[in-house]
Amino acid sequence: MAAAGPSSTLRVNTAAEPFKDLPPMCAALFEAKARKGLTFEAIGKAIERDEVWIAAAFYGQAKLTPKDIASLSRVLELEQSLLEADLGANWWPRRGLGPMPPNDPVLYRLFEGVLVYGHAIKAIIHEKFGDGIQSMIDCQVTVDKKEDPKGDRVVLTFDGKFLKYSQW
Amino acid sequence: MAAAGPSSTLRVNTAAEPFKDLPPMCAALFEAKARKGLTFEAIGKAIERDEVWIAAAFYGQAKLTPKDIASLSRVLELEQSLLEADLGANWWPRRGLGPMPPNDPVLYRLFEGVLVYGHAIKAIIHEKFGDGIQSMIDCQVTVDKKEDPKGDRVVLTFDGKFLKYSQW
Amino acid sequence: MAAAGPSSTLRVNTAAEPFKDLPPMCAALFEAKARKGLTFEAIGKAIERDEVWIAAAFYGQAKLTPKDIASLSRVLELEQSLLEADLGANWWPRRGLGPMPPNDPVLYRLFEGVLVYGHAIKAIIHEKFGDGIQSMIDCQVTVDKKEDPKGDRVVLTFDGKFLKYSQW
Amino acid sequence: MAAAGPSSTLRVNTAAEPFKDLPPMCAALFEAKARKGLTFEAIGKAIERDEVWIAAAFYGQAKLTPKDIASLSRVLELEQSLLEADLGANWWPRRGLGPMPPNDPVLYRLFEGVLVYGHAIKAIIHEKFGDGIQSMIDCQVTVDKKEDPKGDRVVLTFDGKFLKYSQW
Amino acid sequence: MAAAGPSSTLRVNTAAEPFKDLPPMCAALFEAKARKGLTFEAIGKAIERDEVWIAAAFYGQAKLTPKDIASLSRVLELEQSLLEADLGANWWPRRGLGPMPPNDPVLYRLFEGVLVYGHAIKAIIHEKFGDGIQSMIDCQVTVDKKEDPKGDRVVLTFDGKFLKYSQW
Amino acid sequence: MAAAGPSSTLRVNTAAEPFKDLPPMCAALFEAKARKGLTFEAIGKAIERDEVWIAAAFYGQAKLTPKDIASLSRVLELEQSLLEADLGANWWPRRGLGPMPPNDPVLYRLFEGVLVYGHAIKAIIHEKFGDGIQSMIDCQVTVDKKEDPKGDRVVLTFDGKFLKYSQW
Amino acid sequence: MAAAGPSSTLRVNTAAEPFKDLPPMCAALFEAKARKGLTFEAIGKAIERDEVWIAAAFYGQAKLTPKDIASLSRVLELEQSLLEADLGANWWPRRGLGPMPPNDPVLYRLFEGVLVYGHAIKAIIHEKFGDGIQSMIDCQVTVDKKEDPKGDRVVLTFDGKFLKYSQW
Amino acid sequence: MAAAGPSSTLRVNTAAEPFKDLPPMCAALFEAKARKGLTFEAIGKAIERDEVWIAAAFYGQAKLTPKDIASLSRVLELEQSLLEADLGANWWPRRGLGPMPPNDPVLYRLFEGVLVYGHAIKAIIHEKFGDGIQSMIDCQVTVDKKEDPKGDRVVLTFDGKFLKYSQW
Amino acid sequence: MAAAGPSSTLRVNTAAEPFKDLPPMCAALFEAKARKGLTFEAIGKAIERDEVWIAAAFYGQAKLTPKDIASLSRVLELEQSLLEADLGANWWPRRGLGPMPPNDPVLYRLFEGVLVYGHAIKAIIHEKFGDGIQSMIDCQVTVDKKEDPKGDRVVLTFDGKFLKYSQW
Amino acid sequence: MAAAGPSSTLRVNTAAEPFKDLPPMCAALFEAKARKGLTFEAIGKAIERDEVWIAAAFYGQAKLTPKDIASLSRVLELEQSLLEADLGANWWPRRGLGPMPPNDPVLYRLFEGVLVYGHAIKAIIHEKFGDGIQSMIDCQVTVDKKEDPKGDRVVLTFDGKFLKYSQW
Repeated sequence: MAAAGPSSTLRVNTAAEPFKDLPPMCAALFEAKARKGLTFEAIGKAIERDEVWIAAAFYGQAKLTPKDIASLSRVLELEQSLLEADLGANWWPRRGLGPMPPNDPVLYRLFEGVLVYGHAIKAIIHEKFGDGIQSMIDCQVTVDKKEDPKGDRVVLTFDGKFLKYSQW
Repeated sequence: MAAAGPSSTLRVNTAAEPFKDLPPMCAALFEAKARKGLTFEAIGKAIERDEVWIAAAFYGQAKLTPKDIASLSRVLELEQSLLEADLGANWWPRRGLGPMPPNDPVLYRLFEGVLVYGHAIKAIIHEKFGDGIQSMIDCQVTVDKKEDPKGDRVVLTFDGKFLKYSQW
Repeated sequence: MAAAGPSSTLRVNTAAEPFKDLPPMCAALFEAKARKGLTFEAIGKAIERDEVWIAAAFYGQAKLTPKDIASLSRVLELEQSLLEADLGANWWPRRGLGPMPPNDPVLYRLFEGVLVYGHAIKAIIHEKFGDGIQSMIDCQVTVDKKEDPKGDRVVLTFDGKFLKYSQW
Repeated sequence: MAAAGPSSTLRVNTAAEPFKDLPPMCAALFEAKARKGLTFEAIGKAIERDEVWIAAAFYGQAKLTPKDIASLSRVLELEQSLLEADLGANWWPRRGLGPMPPNDPVLYRLFEGVLVYGHAIKAIIHEKFGDGIQSMIDCQVTVDKKEDPKGDRVVLTFDGKFLKYSQW
Repeated sequence: MAAAGPSSTLRVNTAAEPFKDLPPMCAALFEAKARKGLTFEAIGKAIERDEVWIAAAFYGQAKLTPKDIASLSRVLELEQSLLEADLGANWWPRRGLGPMPPNDPVLYRLFEGVLVYGHAIKAIIHEKFGDGIQSMIDCQVTVDKKEDPKGDRVVLTFDGKFLKYSQW
Repeated sequence: MAAAGPSSTLRVNTAAEPFKDLPPMCAALFEAKARKGLTFEAIGKAIERDEVWIAAAFYGQAKLTPKDIASLSRVLELEQSLLEADLGANWWPRRGLGPMPPNDPVLYRLFEGVLVYGHAIKAIIHEKFGDGIQSMIDCQVTVDKKEDPKGDRVVLTFDGKFLKYSQW
Repeated sequence: MAAAGPSSTLRVNTAAEPFKDLPPMCAALFEAKARKGLTFEAIGKAIERDEVWIAAAFYGQAKLTPKDIASLSRVLELEQSLLEADLGANWWPRRGLGPMPPNDPVLYRLFEGVLVYGHAIKAIIHEKFGDGIQSMIDCQVTVDKKEDPKGDRVVLTFDGKFLKYSQW
Repeated sequence: MAAAGPSSTLRVNTAAEPFKDLPPMCAALFEAKARKGLTFEAIGKAIERDEVWIAAAFYGQAKLTPKDIASLSRVLELEQSLLEADLGANWWPRRGLGPMPPNDPVLYRLFEGVLVYGHAIKAIIHEKFGDGIQSMIDCQVTVDKKEDPKGDRVVLTFDGKFLKYSQW
Repeated sequence: MAAAGPSSTLRVNTAAEPFKDLPPMCAALFEAKARKGLTFEAIGKAIERDEVWIAAAFYGQAKLTPKDIASLSRVLELEQSLLEADLGANWWPRRGLGPMPPNDPVLYRLFEGVLVYGHAIKAIIHEKFGDGIQSMIDCQVTVDKKEDPKGDRVVLTFDGKFLKYSQW
Repeated sequence: MAAAGPSSTLRVNTAAEPFKDLPPMCAALFEAKARKGLTFEAIGKAIERDEVWIAAAFYGQAKLTPKDIASLSRVLELEQSLLEADLGANWWPRRGLGPMPPNDPVLYRLFEGVLVYGHAIKAIIHEKFGDGIQSMIDCQVTVDKKEDPKGDRVVLTFDGKFLKYSQW
C-alpha cells in the first residue's frame, strides 16, 4: 500500500485532466494528503466519513459540510478560508468527471461492467422491485479488500434506494 | 414483484434493440420464462447459478455450459438442439450490449455511478491494492434487496479479482 | 385541434423511428386512437390517467398496470392478450427514445431549454433546496394550453421530488 | 438554504467550464453575490426580474438591459463600466452552455426529461395546438419549491408561446 | 431541366435513406410525380403552394392540409385514403431528415454556409434587430434561378419572422 | 438597434470561443467597432463592402484585400501593420467557425433550416438546374430587415453560382 | 489483374453497406460486369467515359446521361427500363458513400492523405492561386498504373477548377 | 499570387489550431517565410525539395533531415539550434493535423473527394493491381497549376506505391 | 477447447453484427466449420494457411485465392460456385469490421493495448527504424498459446514490414 | 537509428498533446534522454527494464518503482525529488493517451490491426483457450527488429495472460 506511512511528495499538474476542471484547492488537497502521509481511510476516520466519499469530495464530486471543511483544514493543515472559498457554501459540485468512455483501464472496467452486466442488472432490479431505478443520489459506495490466497479481491458496492416511477 | 407466480405472456420484438443483435433463442428464453411464470431467481436456483449471471446469459453476455443448456432446456421446455445451435459450444458471446451513454434511466444510473464516483473508486483501489485494476472478467455481480422502512434499497456488488500491472 | 372528433385513419410506418424500437402494439395503439377519433385527453379521462402519461405509455416510456391494459383494451377495442403480451407484466420499458440531440424542432426546443436555461435551473435548485437533484422518476409532467390574445401559450410543467445527495 | 444570510466567500475557477467560455464579469457576478450574501431571489427582487432569468444572465445566457446593468452594479457593488464592457450593449449572448449530454446529474435529469417524455410532450402539443412548436425564445422559465411532507418538490415550468408552422 | 415534359419512370429504394424513415406514401409521391412528368413548380401551381414547400411535404417535412391531400390525390392520381392514412390528420411530421453533417455535396454546401457565414449572420441580425432569432417556424423558403451569362445563379431565400427573447 | 450611435465599450474574452481560434486582431476589430460606435452597415459603406461580408471578415472567415485593410485601419483607428500581420497577405482564412451542431439558438435555426428544408432545396435545385450544386464559394450572402406590422422579418439570401458536375 | 478475361460470378449482398443505400440496379451493374468479364476500363471505352467516372456511377455517385444508360444497357445486357427507373432522369445522386473516417484500409489511406498533407495542399493552393478552393464538382479524377521495378505505383490525380471566393 | 515578392509581415496565433499542437518553431518558420517574402516553391528550390513536402514539414507533418535543417536555417535566417531542438533528430512527427471532418472548405473538398470518389478509386485500384492499397507512406504529393481560359485548374497528384496484402 | 472434436451445431444470426455486413457465405463458412467439428488450426493446415489468416477470411477480411476457395469447398463440403460468387475473383474485402471503440472485452483489450502502449511502441519503432511505420498490409498476425503454471498466456504477434516515409 | 550516439537537443512543447495531459517531468525525461544521447534500449538496460516498458513510463503509462526513479535520476541526471513528486509513490498513471481513432499513421496502423484482424484474433483465442480474454494488465509488450533483405520488419508482440470468465 503506497500512500500511507511517512509523508512524501506529490506535485499535481493542475492544467491536466481532471484537475483543470476543478477548483484549485482540489489539487492542494491531494498534495497535502501526500505531504502528511495519510490514506483516504485515515482521513475518513479523522473526519468521520467513508473513504470513498472523502475521495469523491477531493475530486469535487461531493459537497463538504462546514464541519467537514473545518476538519480537513485541521487534519491536512490547509488554510480554512481557501477551502471555504473554493469548496464551501457558495460552491456546488459539477459532477461527472472526465470523458466517456474512459480511457484509463481502471475506469474502463467499471464502464465495461455496465456494458456487459447492465441489462442483467436492470432485469433483476425490475424483477425484485418493479418499475423504477436504483438511485445514484441516495446511494452509498464502498470499496473493500477481500484477501484471497488466489489473489485479493476488490469488493465494490453500490447501496442505493429504489425509486418507483410516478404514474399520474 | 412482477414476473413471478402463474405463467403469463410476453412477445419480444426481435427487430428492436437489444434483441436484433442477439441469437434468436435469446428472445425465446425470455418468452419461455414468462410462459412458465418463473423469476430469474427461480431459474438460477433450478440450474445452480446466480440470478444475475443467468440474466446476463439470457442477454447473450455469458456463455452457457453444456450442462446449463441441458438444464435450461428442461426447466423452460425449450428444444435443446436450438439452444445448442444458437448459444452452444460453437457460439461465443459478443459482449457489450447497447449504445453508450445509455438512454434508459436504470442503465444510465449505473453509468452515472462511474461518472461521479469513478475517480474516487480508482483512488481507493490504488491506495488499497497498488497499481492495477479490478477485473471485470474474474468478477461476480450480485443484486440484493435490502428492506428499509424509509424505502427499500438495491445493493449492487461487484466482487472482482485485483490484477496487478506487469513490469518487464 | 386535429385528432379529436369523428374517427379517421392512420398507418404507422413500424420500420421507421421511433416505432422500430418499440413493441408492435405501440403502433397499434396509435392506429386505434385515430380510428376511434379520440384525443389523449379523452383516453386519459376514460382510464383515469393524465394525457401526458398516457402518451408516454403509447411510446413505450411508461409501464401500464393490468388495470390500464384492461381499460385501454376496452376503450380502443384492441385485443387484451396482445396488449398484455407486448406491454404487460413481463415487459419493462426501455426508456429514452430517439437520437440526441433531436432533429425534430419540437423536441429540439425542449433540448434547447436545457442548453440555455440548464445552468440557471441548477443554480436555483441548489439555492432553494441544497445539494441534490430534481427527480425525473418521482416526477409528473403536464402540458397545458393557456389562451392568450397575442398567441396561445404552451405551459409545460415538471413536478419532481427533490432528492438530497447521500453523505456517508 | 445555503447562499443566503451573511456574506461569505467564493473563488470561481475561471479556467474551468463553464466560466472559461464566458466574459470575465460572469465569474465576478458570482463572487460578488457570495460576498454580499444574496440569493438569486433577493437579487431578482432588487432588480425586478425573476430569479431564473437573472441566474441565466449570470451564466451569459440572457442579455441584460442598461437598466439591469446599472441595478446589478449598485446591488452587487461591481464597477458598472466593467459590466458594460463585458455584458453590455455591444455583447450578445452565445447561448447554449456546456457539453451535451450533460454529465452533471442535475442537468442530466432535465435532459432525461426530454429523452423519456419528449415524444409524449410533442404528441400532446400537436393534439392541443396543431402543427407547430413551443417557443424557447418567447418563453419564461420558473422554478418553485412545493413543500410536501413526503419530501419537498421542485416545480419547473416552461411557459412558451405556441408557434404555428408557415405554409407558403 | 430534367423531370418536366413527358412522363417517365422512377423506382424509389424505400429501404434506403431518407425514405426508410418516412411513411410509404412519400416514395409513392415521388414515383407518381415522375410518372406524370410534373415538376414541383407545376404541382405547386396546381395545388396553390410554393414549389419548395411542396417538395418539403414530399419529404415528410411539412404537414399537408386536407385540401392539399385532396388536390395531390387528384393531380397525381394517387388514392386519397392512402395519402390520408400516411400523411393526414393523425400524422405529424418528424422533421429533420438525414445525418449531419450531410455527406451529399448539395446539402453540405448549405451546411457550409452556416459554418462560414453563421457568425456573421448572427452579428448582423443582432445589430439590426436586437437580442433574438430568425424563426425557422414562421419562415418561408424559396429557390429561384437567376440567369447570368457567367453562369446561372441559385438564389436561396429564408424569409423568417424575427423573434425577440423574453425577459421576465 | 444596439451598437449604433455614440461610442461605447466592449471587452472580448479572447480565450473563449470563437476568438481563441482567431488572430488577436479579430477581437481588436470588434472592440474598435464598439469604441467608434459603428454598425457593420456603416463600416461596410465606409469601405464599400456588404455588411455581412465585412462581419464575416471580422470573424476571420473572409480575406481582406490590402485596400480593405487600409480602409479598416483608417475607419477604426487600428494600427495598419498589426492588421496586416494578423489578417494580411500572408494569412489565409481557416474557415468554418465553432462546433456543429451549434448550441447558440441563432446559429441553430440556420442549421435547422438545412435539416428541415435541405432535401427540398436539393430537389428544387436539381429540377431547375440539373446535376450540380449551389456554390458557397462564388456566393453572396445578405441579411435584410423587412418591416411587418405582425412582426419584422429577417430576409436571409444566399445568391450562389450553379456549378454543374463534371463528366469525363 | 483480377476481374478481366472470361466471365465469372458475383453475388452482391444488397443488405450490406454500401449497397443498402443505393438503388437496386447498382448491385445489378456489378453483377452484370462480372458476368460479362469486363473491366471498368473496358466498359469506360465502350461507352466513352473514363473508368473512374463509370465506377463512381456504378456506386450511385454520378448521374448517367440517357445515352450512358442506353450504352450500359447494351454492353451489360441489362434491361434499359430498369436502369432508367433506378438511375435515370428522375433520380439524383445522394453523393457521399459510407461512414467517415472509413474503416477500409484503401479508403482510409485517402483519408490519411487529407490528414497528413491537407494543410500543405491548402497552403500551396493559396500560394499559387490566392483565396479560393479546388472544385470537387468541376473535377476529374483518374487512377493510373505506373510500372516500377521497385514496385508498381498508383498515380491518383484530381484535376479540379480553381474557384475564387466572392467578395461583395 | 500573394506571398511572393518583397518581404511582408505575419503574426501566427500559436494558441490556435493547428499551431497549438506543433513545436514553436513551426510558427517561426511561417513568420520567417513571410518576412523573407519567399514562396514554398522558392524555399523548395533552395533546399532541393518539392514545395508540398516542405509545406508539410512546416506543419510538422514531415521529418526534416539534418541537411534540410541546416538549409532552412540559412535560407530563412532562423537559429539552427532552435530548429534542431524543436524539429531535429530527437523529434518525430505526430502526423494528422486538425479535426475531421474538416470545417475549412479547402480541406473539406479533399475530404469530399474521398466521400464521393473513394469507392470508385478503390474499385479501380483493385481492378488494376489486385488486393492491396495505395501507400500514403511511400507516396509523393504534388500540386500543379494548369492554366485554362475557362478558369485555371488545380492538379493534385498522389503518386504512391501499391502494397499487396500478405497471405500467410 | 471448444469447437474441435466431433461435429456440432451452430446457427449464425445473419441479421446481427458483424454478419449483416458480410456476404452470406461468411455465415455459411462458420456453420460448416461447426458441422464438421473443425478448428481454424485444422482448416488452416488442410488448406496450407495460418489459422489467423483463415479466420480473417471467414470474417471477410482477407481475399481467398481460387485455390483457397477450391480447398475450402472440399474441406467444408460447401458448394464452390457459391463461395466463388460471394468471396471470389469479383469480390474485394471491405476491411474494418464493427464499431470502434469495440464493446466486446476481447476486442477492447486489443484497443486498450493501443491506448496504453501505442505511444511507447511508436517511440521504439522510430528509435529502431527511423521515420516510418509498421505496415498492416505486408503484415502477418499470429496467436500462440504458451502454457504456464501460473496461467496460460496468449502470445499475439504482428510481424510487419517497416515502411519509410518518402521525401521528395 | 536516430537518437543514439552523442548527445543532442530536444525541446518538448508541453502545451501540446500528449504532454499537456502528463506531469511536467515526462517532458523533462524526453529532453534529458536526448541530452544524454541515449536510446530507450540503453536506458532500459541501465535500469533493468525492457525498452517498451520504459518508453511507456516516459509517457506516464506505467508506474515507476522507487528503485526505477532512483536509477533514472542517476542515468539521466535529473533531480530525484522532482521525479518523485511527479511520478512517484503518490502519483498513479491515468492510462490511455490521446484521441481515438488516432490520426498519427504509426498509431493508426495498430488501430487498423484491431479493425481488420480483431475478430479473427478473438475467434482464435476462444478456440484455443475458451471463453475469456487476453489480459492487457498482466501483459508484456515487445518490439523487435528483424532484418530482411526485402525490407526490415517490425515484430510487435503482446504476451498476456489468458483470463477465464467467472461463472457464479
